[in-house]
Amino acid sequence: MIQGSAVVLLSGGLDSATTLAIARSLGFDVLALSFDYGQRHEVELLAARRVAKAIGAREHRVIEIDLRAFGGSALTADLPVPRSRTEEERGKDIPITYVPARNTIFLAYALGWAEVLGAQDLFIGVNAVDYSGYPDCRPEFVQAFERLANLATKAGVEGRPFRVHAPLIELTKAQIIRRGLELGIDYALTHSCYDPDTAGRPCGECDSCRIRLGAFEELGLADPAYDAVR
Amino acid sequence: MIQGSAVVLLSGGLDSATTLAIARSLGFDVLALSFDYGQRHEVELLAARRVAKAIGAREHRVIEIDLRAFGGSALTADLPVPRSRTEEERGKDIPITYVPARNTIFLAYALGWAEVLGAQDLFIGVNAVDYSGYPDCRPEFVQAFERLANLATKAGVEGRPFRVHAPLIELTKAQIIRRGLELGIDYALTHSCYDPDTAGRPCGECDSCRIRLGAFEELGLADPAYDAVR
Repeated sequence: MIQGSAVVLLSGGLDSATTLAIARSLGFDVLALSFDYGQRHEVELLAARRVAKAIGAREHRVIEIDLRAFGGSALTADLPVPRSRTEEERGKDIPITYVPARNTIFLAYALGWAEVLGAQDLFIGVNAVDYSGYPDCRPEFVQAFERLANLATKAGVEGRPFRVHAPLIELTKAQIIRRGLELGIDYALTHSCYDPDTAGRPCGECDSCRIRLGAFEELGLADPAYDAVR
Repeated sequence: MIQGSAVVLLSGGLDSATTLAIARSLGFDVLALSFDYGQRHEVELLAARRVAKAIGAREHRVIEIDLRAFGGSALTADLPVPRSRTEEERGKDIPITYVPARNTIFLAYALGWAEVLGAQDLFIGVNAVDYSGYPDCRPEFVQAFERLANLATKAGVEGRPFRVHAPLIELTKAQIIRRGLELGIDYALTHSCYDPDTAGRPCGECDSCRIRLGAFEELGLADPAYDAVR
């Protein structure tokens, strides 16, 4: 089935890579959008480039935005990333790696680009199950953004409504990986770590690494992105 | 009455200057936020700096964002700005000066900054009466953004809700000017023109100039920002 164009937010991590592959598998002509937001590691953007190419995005655009100007997160400021937390500790509160308004800002840009392109579909790889406690990864956030998009734009007002797809939102990390493997994703290309070493290798200990490694283990598989460090 | 901090979007135009003065008059400690988004004229940002200083913003931050990367508007791409349109022509459709998702992107950044600051109040100078036909200047847009903000953020989820104020939304341009003059604004400091000359002087013919000049005329006043060109 041939769909129109879709703008897909792509970080280079496991979730957004799977989301891009799902959008492709649904027949969308996919355009990937990444952000250079003062990450402490460029390795994430390198992964995004590899993934966009491997999955066949028609275009991949990287927008530079400066979230460091506001501070307030271990991912953009110079605060230590928590390591070796258990599932219970992770579930307790919103972690310091939370970036204020990040997904709102990312979706706002995706909306602007989609409207210029004439695309009506946006994809975001948020996930409410193993979601690390971020408020902007919940279904009610995604629905509220879709509603906003259709009030905010010429396209929405003129009857070409936007749809915001979050195909991973109800899946566990293991289910996401299984779906991605069915679609032929090479997860060795992806990068999820919050705190890689200077060579870009994942730490294996931050929340993001632990969730991912746990899910591969659950499936009885080795995570190909961690072969080098294990 | 002493309120907390508020983030106020400030373009340097008549509406946002009035909004900043209103936020101050309500007792908020105001922090002004402007964007350098590839405007064809730097004069807008110069006006924002003058206005922030004159009205007494505690801080004024300018964030560089590249809306030109998407194209699609006479304000960010190389398309001609319409001139000398009547009120009827202006009302007919969404003009080419519309920037896709602009207010969504601006409010998303304001939200991020507010959350880092611990501020719960955002101000935006949108106006649905003489609004030039932009969908993201309507009350339903502002309400939808407030709702989104409280689902998107740690502060919202933890019971410190955001309020998005649009104090001009139901006012005519003449009412806005009258309110601003009561608050002591010097409108000579502001800049509203979509298409200034190389010296930064307003054209007097674009929609924005015509709406503004018409409103001052309605009040029986000369617009001080246009003294030089008239």
